[in-house]
Amino acid sequence: MNPKISQFLNANQLTTPCLVVDIDRIEQNYRQLHHAIPSADIYYAVKANPALPILNKLITLNSFFDAASWEEIHSCLSAGAKPSQISFGNTIKKVSAIQAAYQANIELYAFDTLEELQKLTQHAPGAKVYCRLAVDNMGADWPLSGKFGTTTEHAIKLLLEAKKAGLYPYGVSFHVGSQQTDPHAYIHAIEKSAVVFNALATQDIYLEMINLGGGFPIQYHKDVPEISQFTTTIQNSLTHYFGDTIPRIILEPGRYIVGNAGVVSTEIIQSSQRGKANGPRWIYLDIGRFGGLAETEGEAIRYPITTMYDGSTTGPVILAGPSCDGVDVLYQKTNYHLPLQLTAGDRVALLNTGAYVSTYCSTCFNGFTPLEEYYI
Amino acid sequence: MNPKISQFLNANQLTTPCLVVDIDRIEQNYRQLHHAIPSADIYYAVKANPALPILNKLITLNSFFDAASWEEIHSCLSAGAKPSQISFGNTIKKVSAIQAAYQANIELYAFDTLEELQKLTQHAPGAKVYCRLAVDNMGADWPLSGKFGTTTEHAIKLLLEAKKAGLYPYGVSFHVGSQQTDPHAYIHAIEKSAVVFNALATQDIYLEMINLGGGFPIQYHKDVPEISQFTTTIQNSLTHYFGDTIPRIILEPGRYIVGNAGVVSTEIIQSSQRGKANGPRWIYLDIGRFGGLAETEGEAIRYPITTMYDGSTTGPVILAGPSCDGVDVLYQKTNYHLPLQLTAGDRVALLNTGAYVSTYCSTCFNGFTPLEEYYI
Repeated sequence: MNPKISQFLNANQLTTPCLVVDIDRIEQNYRQLHHAIPSADIYYAVKANPALPILNKLITLNSFFDAASWEEIHSCLSAGAKPSQISFGNTIKKVSAIQAAYQANIELYAFDTLEELQKLTQHAPGAKVYCRLAVDNMGADWPLSGKFGTTTEHAIKLLLEAKKAGLYPYGVSFHVGSQQTDPHAYIHAIEKSAVVFNALATQDIYLEMINLGGGFPIQYHKDVPEISQFTTTIQNSLTHYFGDTIPRIILEPGRYIVGNAGVVSTEIIQSSQRGKANGPRWIYLDIGRFGGLAETEGEAIRYPITTMYDGSTTGPVILAGPSCDGVDVLYQKTNYHLPLQLTAGDRVALLNTGAYVSTYCSTCFNGFTPLEEYYI
Repeated sequence: MNPKISQFLNANQLTTPCLVVDIDRIEQNYRQLHHAIPSADIYYAVKANPALPILNKLITLNSFFDAASWEEIHSCLSAGAKPSQISFGNTIKKVSAIQAAYQANIELYAFDTLEELQKLTQHAPGAKVYCRLAVDNMGADWPLSGKFGTTTEHAIKLLLEAKKAGLYPYGVSFHVGSQQTDPHAYIHAIEKSAVVFNALATQDIYLEMINLGGGFPIQYHKDVPEISQFTTTIQNSLTHYFGDTIPRIILEPGRYIVGNAGVVSTEIIQSSQRGKANGPRWIYLDIGRFGGLAETEGEAIRYPITTMYDGSTTGPVILAGPSCDGVDVLYQKTNYHLPLQLTAGDRVALLNTGAYVSTYCSTCFNGFTPLEEYYI
């Protein structure tokens, strides 16, 4: 476990469940990504964890921000970000949110339908817009396909339309899926982007930017490729398709920046064979799918777990949450093994839980209050 | 739509998304169930909706309460419920929660493992306990099997153990699954209960209570059997297995009491063909899976939808939530049709959303604040 968080947990007998996030680790992750691809601008995906100490740190590092809502834009501005550092990246925006963002001088907006373009034309006249392309999400543990993005043909039409409507057709975006473990996923997406760039250039519209979205993986239950494998593939692919005129590159990492900076400390409420001589024990934690671990749906994201008995004999376990809800089971098919000694009252740590935990947490399902958060 | 809620929504231009709950309808549902099976005690499953106005109303009706946590027990007590009206129904309880409940004179506790029994022995000496049986959940739209309950053989052993440990072996419980649409699901479960009662009677332990759990369905997308079909089946089955000595019967309805008393008002953020000439439109609402509609996971619960254009020409739609999350899609396989006229800014109503919406809602996923609630 992260030594700073380990020390903090040992020094403070915190009420569980709680999330502890190491801000220094976030800085390290940011610098690492910046170092791997210095030509790209990093727009932190605020939705991964919008806590103020994270925003504050990233502002000191001159990060940009990808916001999913007016509320997230407001958080960034309140933390001291400039409007020019913020992209309104959700393609589904309420008119009131567009109005508020435009009023606050936000310049950059995503879209992927004619209807959204019409809203932007009316409520954010002259804004820089980029069109989201639908791309393959194969290789992603948390895929995003279906809901967002459009075809290259339609994107070309929409960006032409944007120009006609007085907007600034600035570029394209795509998302290869969250926790994407295959670097090659970017190649075909960059090729699609080039198709749009080239088609519009024949109409004297010269796009300037490709937003590569998020998706860089972090280590959970299994190893993932190094970040350099992704950035090298991306840079080679950009050179291949764009030659000497590589556009501005935007990245929107969320998980990559905050994921491994966080640890959830949780207490075992019950550990039982459930009356069976054989088979896995059931271990019930005081955090579950509705307490923040929403990404365990379908056992998609598999957090590493450490305990005070690591190194001793283990056995197979099914892990479940504390609620009366039958679907509140974390890992049943995944082959987790934990020390046999573990019993009710023991604490265990769920590693790499800095992203998408605090915000997914329900307000009060089964009466449980949201998990406490500590930023150190 | 419920006329009282309709009138309230028309009279007040509320910020969406919001949940409006008709307290009179809750009273009506409670009385209807009580009338259908007057011999049973109704323990309202607080987790379905723990709002104070609901607890207050049910207290005036002399309802009992099924609590999933110490926090829910505390809410009931604060609202004026007596400790004897409350059951601590979660089989997974923290020691601190058992201690707090016992301190507050809560008498009745669920369990289904030896480990939980040991905790109760130590921290709730002398308490009335009931053992949860695992039963078939076939026919339920939101099944609960796997995580809870044990075999009849193990339950018999555990209740004998409870007696030895100085606890009061009071009865058994089961849950046929939430939104259970087949009345026959109760028959086999009652038969299992009788097996436990009979086996213990040979050991001079006379159980007194069967907790039939929740599960009564309400009408969503399709018709469901009348409540009388369930209660008649239950009563016939009790007579069949227990003859003249029918034990005390407890019901734990949640959805049945509050489900059809609530309406979510939501705004369409976007409606688009997404560049395709054919196929369903995508309609994006300002509430999604992480804004409270968690039970749309796997399209399990299918809320009826009404609009201002009902009666006009409709077309197939895919319904999705407002977040940047790709899994935040409500209905894609279910064949929803909505009026073609619907467009961004229009409001639609999701009916029968009184249960399991306000509490599942995330604290701030994508920056969105939890939905407002109105109890009228």
